[in-house]
Amino acid sequence: MPVTAAVIPAPGQAVELRQFPDPVLEPGAVLLRTLYTEVCGTDVHLQHGRLPGVPYPLIPGHINVGTIAAIGGEVTDAFGSTLAVGETVTFLDVHETCHHCWYCLVAKASTRCPHRRVYGITYGADEGLLGGWSEAIYLKPGVKILRLPEGLTAEQVIAGGCALPTAFHAVERGQVGLADHVVVQGSGPVGLMAAALARLAGAQQVIVIGAPNIRLEVARRLGADAVISIEATTPEKRVAAVRDLTGGRGADITIEASGNPQAIPEGLQMTRDAGVYVVVGQYTDCGPVAINPHHDLNRKHLDVRATWGIDLSHQYKALQVMARFRDAVPWTGVISRYYNLDQANDALADIEAGRVVKAVLCPNGCL
Amino acid sequence: MPVTAAVIPAPGQAVELRQFPDPVLEPGAVLLRTLYTEVCGTDVHLQHGRLPGVPYPLIPGHINVGTIAAIGGEVTDAFGSTLAVGETVTFLDVHETCHHCWYCLVAKASTRCPHRRVYGITYGADEGLLGGWSEAIYLKPGVKILRLPEGLTAEQVIAGGCALPTAFHAVERGQVGLADHVVVQGSGPVGLMAAALARLAGAQQVIVIGAPNIRLEVARRLGADAVISIEATTPEKRVAAVRDLTGGRGADITIEASGNPQAIPEGLQMTRDAGVYVVVGQYTDCGPVAINPHHDLNRKHLDVRATWGIDLSHQYKALQVMARFRDAVPWTGVISRYYNLDQANDALADIEAGRVVKAVLCPNGCL
Amino acid sequence: MPVTAAVIPAPGQAVELRQFPDPVLEPGAVLLRTLYTEVCGTDVHLQHGRLPGVPYPLIPGHINVGTIAAIGGEVTDAFGSTLAVGETVTFLDVHETCHHCWYCLVAKASTRCPHRRVYGITYGADEGLLGGWSEAIYLKPGVKILRLPEGLTAEQVIAGGCALPTAFHAVERGQVGLADHVVVQGSGPVGLMAAALARLAGAQQVIVIGAPNIRLEVARRLGADAVISIEATTPEKRVAAVRDLTGGRGADITIEASGNPQAIPEGLQMTRDAGVYVVVGQYTDCGPVAINPHHDLNRKHLDVRATWGIDLSHQYKALQVMARFRDAVPWTGVISRYYNLDQANDALADIEAGRVVKAVLCPNGCL
Amino acid sequence: MPVTAAVIPAPGQAVELRQFPDPVLEPGAVLLRTLYTEVCGTDVHLQHGRLPGVPYPLIPGHINVGTIAAIGGEVTDAFGSTLAVGETVTFLDVHETCHHCWYCLVAKASTRCPHRRVYGITYGADEGLLGGWSEAIYLKPGVKILRLPEGLTAEQVIAGGCALPTAFHAVERGQVGLADHVVVQGSGPVGLMAAALARLAGAQQVIVIGAPNIRLEVARRLGADAVISIEATTPEKRVAAVRDLTGGRGADITIEASGNPQAIPEGLQMTRDAGVYVVVGQYTDCGPVAINPHHDLNRKHLDVRATWGIDLSHQYKALQVMARFRDAVPWTGVISRYYNLDQANDALADIEAGRVVKAVLCPNGCL
Repeated sequence: MPVTAAVIPAPGQAVELRQFPDPVLEPGAVLLRTLYTEVCGTDVHLQHGRLPGVPYPLIPGHINVGTIAAIGGEVTDAFGSTLAVGETVTFLDVHETCHHCWYCLVAKASTRCPHRRVYGITYGADEGLLGGWSEAIYLKPGVKILRLPEGLTAEQVIAGGCALPTAFHAVERGQVGLADHVVVQGSGPVGLMAAALARLAGAQQVIVIGAPNIRLEVARRLGADAVISIEATTPEKRVAAVRDLTGGRGADITIEASGNPQAIPEGLQMTRDAGVYVVVGQYTDCGPVAINPHHDLNRKHLDVRATWGIDLSHQYKALQVMARFRDAVPWTGVISRYYNLDQANDALADIEAGRVVKAVLCPNGCL
Repeated sequence: MPVTAAVIPAPGQAVELRQFPDPVLEPGAVLLRTLYTEVCGTDVHLQHGRLPGVPYPLIPGHINVGTIAAIGGEVTDAFGSTLAVGETVTFLDVHETCHHCWYCLVAKASTRCPHRRVYGITYGADEGLLGGWSEAIYLKPGVKILRLPEGLTAEQVIAGGCALPTAFHAVERGQVGLADHVVVQGSGPVGLMAAALARLAGAQQVIVIGAPNIRLEVARRLGADAVISIEATTPEKRVAAVRDLTGGRGADITIEASGNPQAIPEGLQMTRDAGVYVVVGQYTDCGPVAINPHHDLNRKHLDVRATWGIDLSHQYKALQVMARFRDAVPWTGVISRYYNLDQANDALADIEAGRVVKAVLCPNGCL
Repeated sequence: MPVTAAVIPAPGQAVELRQFPDPVLEPGAVLLRTLYTEVCGTDVHLQHGRLPGVPYPLIPGHINVGTIAAIGGEVTDAFGSTLAVGETVTFLDVHETCHHCWYCLVAKASTRCPHRRVYGITYGADEGLLGGWSEAIYLKPGVKILRLPEGLTAEQVIAGGCALPTAFHAVERGQVGLADHVVVQGSGPVGLMAAALARLAGAQQVIVIGAPNIRLEVARRLGADAVISIEATTPEKRVAAVRDLTGGRGADITIEASGNPQAIPEGLQMTRDAGVYVVVGQYTDCGPVAINPHHDLNRKHLDVRATWGIDLSHQYKALQVMARFRDAVPWTGVISRYYNLDQANDALADIEAGRVVKAVLCPNGCL
Repeated sequence: MPVTAAVIPAPGQAVELRQFPDPVLEPGAVLLRTLYTEVCGTDVHLQHGRLPGVPYPLIPGHINVGTIAAIGGEVTDAFGSTLAVGETVTFLDVHETCHHCWYCLVAKASTRCPHRRVYGITYGADEGLLGGWSEAIYLKPGVKILRLPEGLTAEQVIAGGCALPTAFHAVERGQVGLADHVVVQGSGPVGLMAAALARLAGAQQVIVIGAPNIRLEVARRLGADAVISIEATTPEKRVAAVRDLTGGRGADITIEASGNPQAIPEGLQMTRDAGVYVVVGQYTDCGPVAINPHHDLNRKHLDVRATWGIDLSHQYKALQVMARFRDAVPWTGVISRYYNLDQANDALADIEAGRVVKAVLCPNGCL
């Protein structure tokens, strides 16, 4: 039976539904019937053709949840436990991290491995069903499959989506912990998840800066103690507001999750002397920005920790944390709307316009 | 007997010699007969009035070597050993770090203590003989005095000057060690000392970028494996040259010691993915610079470690290291010329014009 | 009016009440009317004379809460805000950390400063009212006084007592955070507070090992997910139980807070390969213990982080955390009983016998 | 043509020469003609049967240098550069680190990967020519092959042997750097290499403790500033000697490379408060040892960092460092004697008796 997928044919073109032949599984591969996939900010950039090196036509959708429809022989999850048809799983979108090159083994910076490929981003539709906006996803041999931790639903896992492990990496790199005053710049899914995780990690105060108000309301529900709207404020006012909230000093740790280059100088100024500034939002080239190296860096004795990508540890641990705090955080509150596959263009438009916090696609139909 | 000192009367004015009354020592104070003091890039900025909050008239000279001329009662060195008249010592220019405030005791970032004052920079001449461009220096009670380590001469210690502990802090913060490929941007005293220390710390390769050639020659003698002149190259060529020298990847650790904001984006690009970029040269506000947060930070997964000031550990350890490697490094090779006190304006002009690597003043006359 | 204090006259002797003259305040000193003081395990050791270098007669009581009865001139809290008579405060028991010696300034290990003195432990009664088992406490000039954070009561602060900042230091040193499986060995106040803090820091699981059951019940209320009684188990069984609870691997981080040397090999075995073992409970010399360096250390690739004392950051941050999570944790649940000053011997006996979790003295009478 | 190898038939039995068929290369495999292999302390333990899980009969020899005799198709070195017959190479003895399990990918502690196998130790002779005491070594597909860095000879590389990367790991874990006073316990190859590397990393002082004198003389030539013989001293005297050499404080960093459990308490006592103790020598179970957790750990606020195994980064970087400092260190001075394959029992006896510093086998005949 052919498989229907939503495809970006080329940069700038609208998404269209296409049919693909039902794949034949090589040994070690798994076919997933997709339950949920995301429409995230990266997908908007992909539709506009703003990321280099993307092979179009493309089936987007990097983080996904599905049930196992078929298995090529015996296949295990990421930690060696044998999988069965019918199980609900998610998987690490990053594949082919080589674990052999200089970056993997000497620098120990596997998210900079040049061999890594990403489902829904750097694998094209011509290579197979390698994105989540599809009724079925082909998991190549070696893809790291994770069962849902006990007690977590598919909805919760997709609510975390790609944002949760990305935010986990940022919070880990910022070493957010007890007694820390934390600012999160950006109220998209990564910012919201960073706020939630900072709260769970014991932060003394979590301040989220963003817009529109529907996102800031979700930020509050996920754990933000204070929110600052960028719609009604200037950068100077926001810096002053953060100082007011932090005894005049600024944040111990600021996490940039906005994607806007202008957030960088503002965030540096919001961070206290000898504090930590985590850059995790600049996943697309949105141009340059001016900083003052004397005032914003040297004189502040600042640590800036830029953060690229995720590895298995981030996704695995993030799911563990979600399961641990399943009931303490209204995780699914970030999902504004579920869309059918033929509504993908609507979902992209809603994301781009900020009309929704998070858009989830149900490739096999919403309930 | 009155004391002659070289004074910057006000921002933009030439240095002039003034006479000050011989100070009366309070208990715990020490009077130093100055052997050597420096004329460093900061002094050029001070003469132009480019640093905020400096109290003019000013006796410059922050790092100094002298012999003890008088002691107010019993005074010890920084580690509790009683000092005697006639001993040759140096001292930490930073005084009044409070060790009581939030920055000192909670953030443990004492170089950001708001109470710290600096000899020759933030103490004015109206407060006493609190700078080294003077026949005598008044060491207030509590100033951290260090004897010269055995075997080191006063010339060697002033050759290290303020640059050596500043560079030590940078090398420490960059965690430079065995097998690291290191780029140093800037060939002034801080850059040169950073190159020497990186070499001593076992770096695999030390590349110094700067000008003019007389400085680059000293860089080679201090331990640089390769030098790149900024006079004959574009930023793109320099980035390419560093990549060529580092197997295509860029430096593991880059230390910015140039003071030029334009060095920042260039340095970020010279550093390998998941590498470390230490900012230690931006001690004066020389305006903004444009960086690309996607390419230069996020995508590179970079660590940027801005580094302000020094504390006792840096000066103490730097002197220990200099003593340890006394004969392995031609330390005094950085000194281009010794000047008498009445030649301070010449020294400033020579520094500003890049005619000398390092200018040393002998307030009581050169040998 | 004379001041009554409970005094240990000499090692091995019972506590007795003595009267001291009302102290005259030197400038900068503060007199505290004691609200609450603790009777902790260290006090039991002090009564038995098990700590070296303690000057008897001794007024025990290192962490205390009181109201300001008198001030010698103008005195500020630890961060420079002027104090007034009638305010309720606590203070850092460690005084005279010199911030000048090699350990303070070069090693940056101020809890190993040889000049530090501790209220109620290394200050003797002959030096003044320098312990909390007294109607009044004399705070010497420079003692770091902390106001209670808004919303915290004196009862909550004494419930934290010396255990809370000690545990904070241990949790900080172990870098406990999201997704970590944590074992705490020991269910005395330090262990209980470590469990509470680990929970607040987002630990995936907190397992407390100790006895008797009344303490383990408190452990559960403070945040332990699982408790293991040492009364009904062998070391082998406890190691096996921890492995069972941690997927067969052992704890990511184990915090030893038991004071029993036998806990060390057991705890090393409970910790997973490449995990972290924090030693914070061995404050008294209780003799040697055998470990196997091949199995327990080298082969496990373990980090052992021994942890001595506290500094202001630990006490300040611990109070901030307590205020932040005032209602989320039943802090005062650790207090089993309040005692009047003349019941100090009873309190010591109850602690030693394990009849109480935590004993609090009210030197001016319990409510 | 059959291949001759030296084999330990079973625990406790003498080494004997055996003939193996010339192996047929599977695709991706490489056949090495062995130039040099080591006889190290681990081999003595292997001959006595002291390591668990070793499959006898065994061809020992984990770190080796050889020339490529045959290649199964196209094979690259560890970093992707195609290899040719006739090239001289070494290789990482650790193979089959899975890079997929929880220890590899979540704990990021790949030296604790349960799947790793080691040439000459955990691969048996029944599985092939998987040890260096053989005329030829079979490099399985995926074995990480390293070309000798330019300028290094095969003799120098075998002089480093397994000790150099092991010591590199220890020095890295101890973060040895400028201004550090370092003690190395043990003067076998690992201790000697640790001393050389500590020196190259800029240590202020390197003290080696060991025996016999022939090893201590080599220690001096490799960079030790001071040596202490264990033959003429008690543990108390050695601790006192270290204190004398370190201003009374003890070593900043002590590296245990002795293999003797008794070294542990002695080394803890030699390390200064808040210092670092690296355990790298306890590769075999030589029984328990008593430590005092109060005095040796808690009160000292010590960091103990136990260190197991090596990964590619250690071997690669160690070779880079050796090449960098090729002429600065008399690397081959550790080699006492070269042995032919039929002298393997003599070599083992010489090592065990301490008659040689390092014994090197030439399986195809010594020059």
